[in-house]
Amino acid sequence: MKEYSKSKLNRIKRGQNRGTYDVEKINTILDAGFICFAGYIYEGKAISIPTAYGRKGNKIYLHGSQANRMLNALLEAKEASITVMHLDGLVLARSGLHHSVNYRSVTLFGSLKKVENDSEKEAALECVIDQMIENHWDSLRPMHQVELDRTLVVEMTIETASAKIRDVGVNDEPEDYDLDVWAGVVPLKQIAEKPISDHQLKEGIEIPNHVMEYYRQNM
Amino acid sequence: MKEYSKSKLNRIKRGQNRGTYDVEKINTILDAGFICFAGYIYEGKAISIPTAYGRKGNKIYLHGSQANRMLNALLEAKEASITVMHLDGLVLARSGLHHSVNYRSVTLFGSLKKVENDSEKEAALECVIDQMIENHWDSLRPMHQVELDRTLVVEMTIETASAKIRDVGVNDEPEDYDLDVWAGVVPLKQIAEKPISDHQLKEGIEIPNHVMEYYRQNM
Repeated sequence: MKEYSKSKLNRIKRGQNRGTYDVEKINTILDAGFICFAGYIYEGKAISIPTAYGRKGNKIYLHGSQANRMLNALLEAKEASITVMHLDGLVLARSGLHHSVNYRSVTLFGSLKKVENDSEKEAALECVIDQMIENHWDSLRPMHQVELDRTLVVEMTIETASAKIRDVGVNDEPEDYDLDVWAGVVPLKQIAEKPISDHQLKEGIEIPNHVMEYYRQNM
Repeated sequence: MKEYSKSKLNRIKRGQNRGTYDVEKINTILDAGFICFAGYIYEGKAISIPTAYGRKGNKIYLHGSQANRMLNALLEAKEASITVMHLDGLVLARSGLHHSVNYRSVTLFGSLKKVENDSEKEAALECVIDQMIENHWDSLRPMHQVELDRTLVVEMTIETASAKIRDVGVNDEPEDYDLDVWAGVVPLKQIAEKPISDHQLKEGIEIPNHVMEYYRQNM
């Protein structure tokens, strides 16, 4: 599949020129982050909660404690929608109306199931950790059974999705270009600072290569 | 009011030591950003959408086109929940279970109304623009009536709220501190890069002081 099909649910109405249903572009946006906002309904109210995710193919993995209110509400609903957004800049126009931001965002819709099998659970948690920082899982101590038992893992199968990307300059009303008003873009980005080793770290342990590599790629 | 009252809706269950209901702390987190995630229900599904906001006292202003699906769904529900999160670091523990992030997040619950009066609408839009970048509104050309008419402005009165802040190092299992596994924090932050003037900018217009000030404070 190269593109998600459009439905009433995921069809982009506002700013259609910024919209895409391209699977690869959507995966690229998902893989640039590891925090999503999941929407769930609690006593008739829609609540958005940030949570970590991992992606493998068309699957998204979420996790939490067995009593996690959001995950249990999602499992009960058997479906979920999650959104990921990267903020790339302030777009400062000559008029208030044309102010915008540059960004990349994805909204996914999918069906959910609880991951019950231990080895599948562990693979899902590996996916979540490595989404946060590549090649990290293999450097950690193996999970204890009791930890696995205490963890609720949810698998979402992406059924439909859309992305919106804005990455251009200012668009003002034609007659406004003559005004004595400044306009432009202030680029924004998320950066990493130098890793800080735990003060209780055993002597002689260096910052691992994959952590330094993450820092260099994001500094 | 110094603290929001706790109810079933906003009481923090997981990581209570990270939770706060303090109005001033919550406002500080809100004022460090301008993008929130609003949850709304569409055909029985909870969807989270990023959108700009402005805060003034205990009011939050959202805006969009008159046909905006999310805003109209929220107005119909007469209430909303929005979440703001700032990501401050990766917390890389010795075990997968103790991985975390440093962050500041706020979830607000409140009642909604449409802002109908033109001067109140304009004041709300000023609040949204100045939340994005301080002192900016006054540098723009005034709004046209037709622009105001095309814009839907929603006012949320914050009724209850909670925040979660994690800003500490790694917490591992006592017996894991002896492992030959690195642990630490990789700080993350959002920075601004040098403002880029619009290529169609009229000759002789400099980047305004308040934009340079924003850049200097966020570079």
